[in-house]
Parts: sequence; structure tokens; C-alpha cells
Amino acid sequence: MEPWRTAIVDSRNGEIRFRGYDVTALMSGRSFTDVIFLLHQGRLPSSAERRLLDAILIGVADHGSGAPSCAASRLALSGNRQSLSAAVAAGILAVGDDHGGAGMGCMEMIAAGIDVAKRDGISLEASATRTVQEARARKKRLPGFGHRVHSVDPRSTVLLEMARADHVAGDGVAFVEAMEKAIAREIKPLPMNIDGSLAAILHDMGFAPSFGRLVFIIGRVAGLSAEVSEELTREKAMRIKIPVEYDGEAARRLT
Amino acid sequence: MEPWRTAIVDSRNGEIRFRGYDVTALMSGRSFTDVIFLLHQGRLPSSAERRLLDAILIGVADHGSGAPSCAASRLALSGNRQSLSAAVAAGILAVGDDHGGAGMGCMEMIAAGIDVAKRDGISLEASATRTVQEARARKKRLPGFGHRVHSVDPRSTVLLEMARADHVAGDGVAFVEAMEKAIAREIKPLPMNIDGSLAAILHDMGFAPSFGRLVFIIGRVAGLSAEVSEELTREKAMRIKIPVEYDGEAARRLT
Amino acid sequence: MEPWRTAIVDSRNGEIRFRGYDVTALMSGRSFTDVIFLLHQGRLPSSAERRLLDAILIGVADHGSGAPSCAASRLALSGNRQSLSAAVAAGILAVGDDHGGAGMGCMEMIAAGIDVAKRDGISLEASATRTVQEARARKKRLPGFGHRVHSVDPRSTVLLEMARADHVAGDGVAFVEAMEKAIAREIKPLPMNIDGSLAAILHDMGFAPSFGRLVFIIGRVAGLSAEVSEELTREKAMRIKIPVEYDGEAARRLT
Amino acid sequence: MEPWRTAIVDSRNGEIRFRGYDVTALMSGRSFTDVIFLLHQGRLPSSAERRLLDAILIGVADHGSGAPSCAASRLALSGNRQSLSAAVAAGILAVGDDHGGAGMGCMEMIAAGIDVAKRDGISLEASATRTVQEARARKKRLPGFGHRVHSVDPRSTVLLEMARADHVAGDGVAFVEAMEKAIAREIKPLPMNIDGSLAAILHDMGFAPSFGRLVFIIGRVAGLSAEVSEELTREKAMRIKIPVEYDGEAARRLT
Repeated sequence: MEPWRTAIVDSRNGEIRFRGYDVTALMSGRSFTDVIFLLHQGRLPSSAERRLLDAILIGVADHGSGAPSCAASRLALSGNRQSLSAAVAAGILAVGDDHGGAGMGCMEMIAAGIDVAKRDGISLEASATRTVQEARARKKRLPGFGHRVHSVDPRSTVLLEMARADHVAGDGVAFVEAMEKAIAREIKPLPMNIDGSLAAILHDMGFAPSFGRLVFIIGRVAGLSAEVSEELTREKAMRIKIPVEYDGEAARRLT
Repeated sequence: MEPWRTAIVDSRNGEIRFRGYDVTALMSGRSFTDVIFLLHQGRLPSSAERRLLDAILIGVADHGSGAPSCAASRLALSGNRQSLSAAVAAGILAVGDDHGGAGMGCMEMIAAGIDVAKRDGISLEASATRTVQEARARKKRLPGFGHRVHSVDPRSTVLLEMARADHVAGDGVAFVEAMEKAIAREIKPLPMNIDGSLAAILHDMGFAPSFGRLVFIIGRVAGLSAEVSEELTREKAMRIKIPVEYDGEAARRLT
Repeated sequence: MEPWRTAIVDSRNGEIRFRGYDVTALMSGRSFTDVIFLLHQGRLPSSAERRLLDAILIGVADHGSGAPSCAASRLALSGNRQSLSAAVAAGILAVGDDHGGAGMGCMEMIAAGIDVAKRDGISLEASATRTVQEARARKKRLPGFGHRVHSVDPRSTVLLEMARADHVAGDGVAFVEAMEKAIAREIKPLPMNIDGSLAAILHDMGFAPSFGRLVFIIGRVAGLSAEVSEELTREKAMRIKIPVEYDGEAARRLT
Repeated sequence: MEPWRTAIVDSRNGEIRFRGYDVTALMSGRSFTDVIFLLHQGRLPSSAERRLLDAILIGVADHGSGAPSCAASRLALSGNRQSLSAAVAAGILAVGDDHGGAGMGCMEMIAAGIDVAKRDGISLEASATRTVQEARARKKRLPGFGHRVHSVDPRSTVLLEMARADHVAGDGVAFVEAMEKAIAREIKPLPMNIDGSLAAILHDMGFAPSFGRLVFIIGRVAGLSAEVSEELTREKAMRIKIPVEYDGEAARRLT
């Protein structure tokens, strides 16, 4: 087998380097969030970029113990208290397009919309309107807009304010704001949710769309680990009994 | 890297052999349960052994959609409907000592108890009594005995009857039956549950203790896959909302 | 929270019923494969259907310890020997469109192709040709055809022979055979692989497309569990060291 | 079903509070590492505590793409490129006693050793010596000491220097340093590894032993996500072929 090639970590002769930087130097002078940025982008963030990535990771860390990710972790631990890894992993497996995953789809939509604007020489506003009209025509959901609970998601507001104040906001933020207006005009007012604002900001900081999903996983592991820890300390094994109602075939005999 | 060594599957030149047998020959003439037995033991089962392994796999396939394994699968799918693998895996991660895992501990206890009988030249009954007395002294649970719901687990009764009728029952079954009597005498009557009876029978068919856990996983995947399939067909994304009550720190301000 | 509704398992008063049948009755008289069929379809299979499902499950159980699923299980165990559940789950997580997952896509393609034939009143051959031409035009892969290793997959041959001999083959088998001819004519000869033949047969037995992925997971757990068991018995913790070559940024200093 | 109780997150009326603090306030003014600390301990860290937790998370984030956790993530993605959640989860499942998990065992050992010192009115040195002698007598490994590669782990040196400079070092650090001396005297010189030093520092910051495992998972997700991202961008599906050598039963016929 040929060796795997990697540009992430160099681990030789007792030294470990992340993207060229000695791990012990990073440990002495940098934050975990700096290193998350570094591992994914190959460069260290500016202070403004670090603050924004911190805010995004905090914003997705948890939003209730009953959400599918947290509840799956607790259920796994309830049956299998011997493996903390298994419980955290079970929670991550609940992350997908419908739960914590809209950021990736939104980043792809932003990248495509900006590309179209450049290619066709139209404004971001015109490209955003086109994106909304096409989605309406094909009856597709627009990732990053609308919310089950909030009419305005305060986390989204904070992120966008920080991005503007810190001069990180660029084409990505401009594009989602144009989309929000186009949606209100073409469909109905739908607030930009946290997936929409984090997608725009991550785009403007240079991340690939897949990071829109990965950032949710990284942030959510903070919450999942705390949920698992509380379940272990406060509760007994097998305490969770989900009520179930059977409505299938009546009792029957084998022939 | 040196190649990994394996005695399970030989896959070369377009041929696949399981433990020496051509996979297409097994497909034409043998059952899936035969192959589970073969992959783990390196030999094909007798008809009686196949019937018993079938009965065990069926007995653990499911026992309610609200059990931690099934519920974790459904929760994972609720947030992440794009990955059936993730949903099934989440359910497996809930399998541990407290849920579906007592078979392994019971098989270790049976093997140890039979070894002690041979080593010290005492009867299986005497060894079973010693095992029970030691567990009582150390306040340890005896895996395979007692049940949250049933006073007698009908699945356990069926397995033991089949094992006796088929002449598969040996020292393992004799030992757990001696244990059941010793427990009633030394502690209080506790019915042998399905983990206890499947552990005894798997021991008598020559399986290693780890198979006591693996057999549960293999059987339960049948149930998990059906639960996942039903959730996908009958229910919508994010339909599961576990009710939560907050009882922590009151609202406070950052300083 | 409202109780979850289910038609799969009824577990009340110490009785467990799968789709209406008492679990102990199934244990006494039916095979594990019968119960897999029952849980998914709500009816027990005919003998021919059982033989075919057995053959499919055996055919996908394993095809080499170095495949992503088996290797992921072994790697997980190498670092985490305390959790057999975690190791089996890690292997399942490697199952997707590219590994063991083409059956689902192929079942969707078969169902769509047969629908088109009915809707437009054309023959299955004509619908198969159209499917192939469209895929060629859009440069899309045709799931179920072509193989990395085999020019003809012997497992596929066996399955189709059994399906014909047992009179289970119907429109699904007819459609994939028409596709194989159309592919040879319109593109180049590509053998139908095991995903293609199992998809056709599962379609003809009445399974939903998602079962094309789930059947691989159910069958593969037999192999994964044996791989995990061998790794635990034969090998030491942390014995696996994948060789890696670093080709990223040269060593640099933090400023 | 009774609602689940939790003291971690309060999510009501569109507001989300972590341990009483509004999530938007945390997003504006605190780091992700602060929030990890907060979620687990119920209080925000001092600057020194934050720096140490940052250093620990960075120190465990990655140490080579060929390690079981990273390699399991890459293998899972190789077969299943559609699910980033599944790939990250597969890597986490490789975390156990032998890979990334010694911190938890070491924290339990530290807590027990300090308890013994208090209970029996002996010095931490005497308690450390007793711990080492008992482990030697029972032939048990001492978690947190010794290393496959390094004679001295530079990450461990940095952590201990920071803990002392920041006045975070307390009984935990004193105990593991006493253990290092006792091991050199009673057995042979074995360097304290990163699991040993992070365990001591986490103990001194007030974390429960389970956090010794969870902190590795939280930090490692940063590395796993980057490995998964690189695999997705740089490599093709199914590119990983682990070489395997069959040494089992010779080819044989079914009878």
C-alpha cells in the first residue's frame, strides 16, 4: 500500500506540526479556535476572524437537550454507559440536512450565486433574485431561511453585527441579505436563520462549503459532551422509556 | 505497512471464499444463519445448532420501538434522513452492558464457573453456588438473571426447551440452571432472562464470550433496519421533540 | 409528548409480537431470514423468497478484510477494544453510495423505469434503452453495472439463476437484463454486478428501494462482527499503523 | 413520559441560555473554549484556566493521519462520501482506553490517590508510592505514563510549565509528579505523557474524571474534521485498499 499523503499534520521524530507550526508553540500562544481555523484553512485567523469563528461555534453548541442530536446521545448512554465515545458519536449521527446541516447547502448556494453574478456580469441582488425565483419554480427549500420557532433568530442578528463591525462581511453576507429581501418580495418574509448567517460569514472567511456542516459538528460536540456527562452523573442506566403505541396487524397465528 | 492477516475471507482472482467455502456455493445451498455461524466458528452448524442460532437471533431482533437502541436510530434519522447507515449505527451504539449486553458477561461467568469446577474437582452445582455467594458478598449483579418486566421471560423458556430437545444443551445450560436454583436459595428467586439462556446455549455451541454481545447486535440490526424504514416512510423530518425541563442556574449576566 | 406509533413490534404484558406474530412462535419454527423479511414487509416469505433473501445476505456478508467497512471496524477496535458496539458501528458508517450502497440507487432506477414503461405504454426494453441513453447524455453512472475487479460477478450469476429457477424473477429482473443489453449496445459491455441483481430481485419480492441499502448493512454485520472478533482475539491494541507521507507547508514559526 | 431534567441549556421563548448565560452574550464576548468549560463546570474559567484548556484541546487535536481515529474517519468517507457526520463519528468510535483514553483512567487514579492521602493522613508522595507499588504487584499499567514514541513528550512539558506559571497546578500536578519519581524508583523511568499531564491539570481545575475522555473527543474532532475535509477534496471514493493476506482454511467443498 502506498502511504497516504496529507498536508495537515507532520508527525515525525517526536515532533508534531500542524500545517507547519509546532504544536507546542500553538499550545503556548494560540486558542483552540485558532487551531480549528488553521487545520482547515492552512493559515491562522485574524483576531476578527477568530472572534467570528468563536461566535459561530458557541452559537451551535447546543439548543436544547431534546433536540435529535442531544437526545440520541443520551439514549445511547442510557443503554451503553461504558462508552462515552459511542454516546457522543450517536449524537453526531443525528446531524444532517434537517438538523444542523443547512449551513453546507447554504454555502453551496452562496458560492453558486456569486459565481453566476461574476459569470453573467449581473449584480449580487439580481443573482439572489434569480436564485429565489428558481427555487420557487422548482418548489425547493432555501437553506438558511425560515425557522421552526423564532421569527427572528437572535444568534443570527449577533453574527451579522459582529461581521460588519469587524469588516469580515463581504460578498457572502451581501448575497444572503439580498436573498432575504428577494424572498420577502417573491415568496413571503422568512427570517435568515443561524445557518444562513454562519454560511455567509464562513464563505467570506474563505471556508469550503463542507465546513458549513463540519463547524456544526465541532461546535455541537461541546454540547453533546456536556449532555452525556450530565446523563452519566444525574441519571440511572435504562431510565429512558419512550412511550410507544402499536397500531399494526392484530395478533395472528403462524400456520 | 505489512498486510493484515485474516482467516475469515479469501478474496482473490474474482473468487470469494468464507473460511474456505466458495461464497456462491454457500449462497445456493445454505442459510444466512449458517454463514453467521461459519464466519465466527470456522465450521458449519448442525441443523439443531442452526435452529438454535436462528431462535436466538429472532429473540433479540426487537422488543419495542422505545428501547434505547431503536429510539436512538429513529432520533438519528429524524435529524439526518439522508443516511440510513448513520441511523442504524446510532442504534447499535446504544447496545452495552445495560441494554442487550448481559449475554457477554454471562458467557464469561459460565466459562469461569465451569473452569473452577474442573480445576477444583467440584460439581457444577457447587461451583454455581460459589459464584452466587461471591457475587452476593461483593454486591455484584449476576448477568443473565432478573428482568425489569417479566417474572418469567417466555423467550428464555423456548430457548431452553429447544436446546434440550435438540441435545445441544451441555455444561453451559446445566451451569445456568444450577445458578438459578442457587440464586433462589441464597438471594431470592430471580428468573433466568434471555441473556442467561442464550449465553448458556452459545457456550454449549462453542462460541467465545464476545459473541454474546455480537449476536445481539447482529439480531438487533434486523429490528433497527425495520424501525428506520418505518420512520422514513411514515414520519416527517424533525418530528421528534423530547420534552425537557430546565432546573439549573437562573438567568444571569456576564460581567 | 405523544407516543410514537409503530406497526412493527407490539410489546405489552410480557408478550412480544412482530407484525402480529408471537416472537416465541417465530423462534420455534422460523428462520432469522424469515423474520428479516417479515419485519420489513409485514408478511412471511415463501420458501423461494426466503432462499433468495438468504442468498443475498450471504452474498454481501463480506468480500475482504481490507474493504472500507471491515477496515474501519478493525481500526476502531484497535484504539477502542472496550466497545464491540463501537467497532461494528464504525464499519457500518463506511457503507454509502460508493461501498455497498448501489443497490438502493439501482432499485430506484428499476422502479422508475418500470413506471415509465407503464405510463407511456412502452416495453421494458424501450424503457431500459431510454434510461441508458439519458444516463449517457447526462454522464451519470448506472448503479448496479460494472465492477472494479470482476468482468463477470459470479454472485450475480448465481442470484439470477436462483430467481429464475424459483419463479421469483419478474419485471425487475427483466428490466435489469434489458438494461445490460442496452448498455452493451449504447455504451460498452458492463457486467451486471451483485448490486444490480439483488436490486432487481428485491424489487420483484416487493421491497422498497431503501431496503437495497439496508440489506447490505444487515448482511455485512455478519462479516463485520467476525472481523471484529478476529481482531480482538488475534491482534494487539494499537497494532495498526497506516503509513503517511506529509507533503504540506514546510516548518514555520509563529510570529 | 416525564420530561427530561437538565441544568445545561434553557431554551424557551426564542431565548437560549447556557448555564444561565444568554447565548448571544457569550457569542459576543467569550471564546468557544470558555463555553466548553462553562457547559461542563457551570462556571466560566479564569484567563489562566482558559489558556490551559486551550492548550489541552490543541495538544490532542491530531497527531497523525494514520492514527486509528483519523484513519477510521478517512476509511468511512472513502466508502460513504455522502455523510460527513458518519465519517467524523467513525473516527470518534476509535477513541478508547488504548487511543486517547488514558486521561480518564489517570484522573480516577489521581482522585483516588489524593483521597487516600487525606483519609490516611499521609503525604501525596507516600500515597503516590503506594499507588505505584500496588500497580506493580497487580501487574497493572499506570495510565498517563510511558509512550510508544517519545522518551519525553514535549506537549506534556509545555502543559506542566503553563500550569505552574499560571498557578493552576495544585494537588493533581503534585501527585503525578510524585508518581513519576516513584515509578522511576520502583519500576523504571517512564516519562509522564500528555494524558498524565492533562489529567492532573483538569483535576486541579475541578473537572470530573469522565472529562479526561471527553476533552480528547472535543479536541480530536478539530483534527478529524480537517482530515475528512482533506480526504474529500484531495482523494477519490474507494481509493483506500488495505492489503490483506489470507492464512485460513484451504479451499474446501460443501457436502
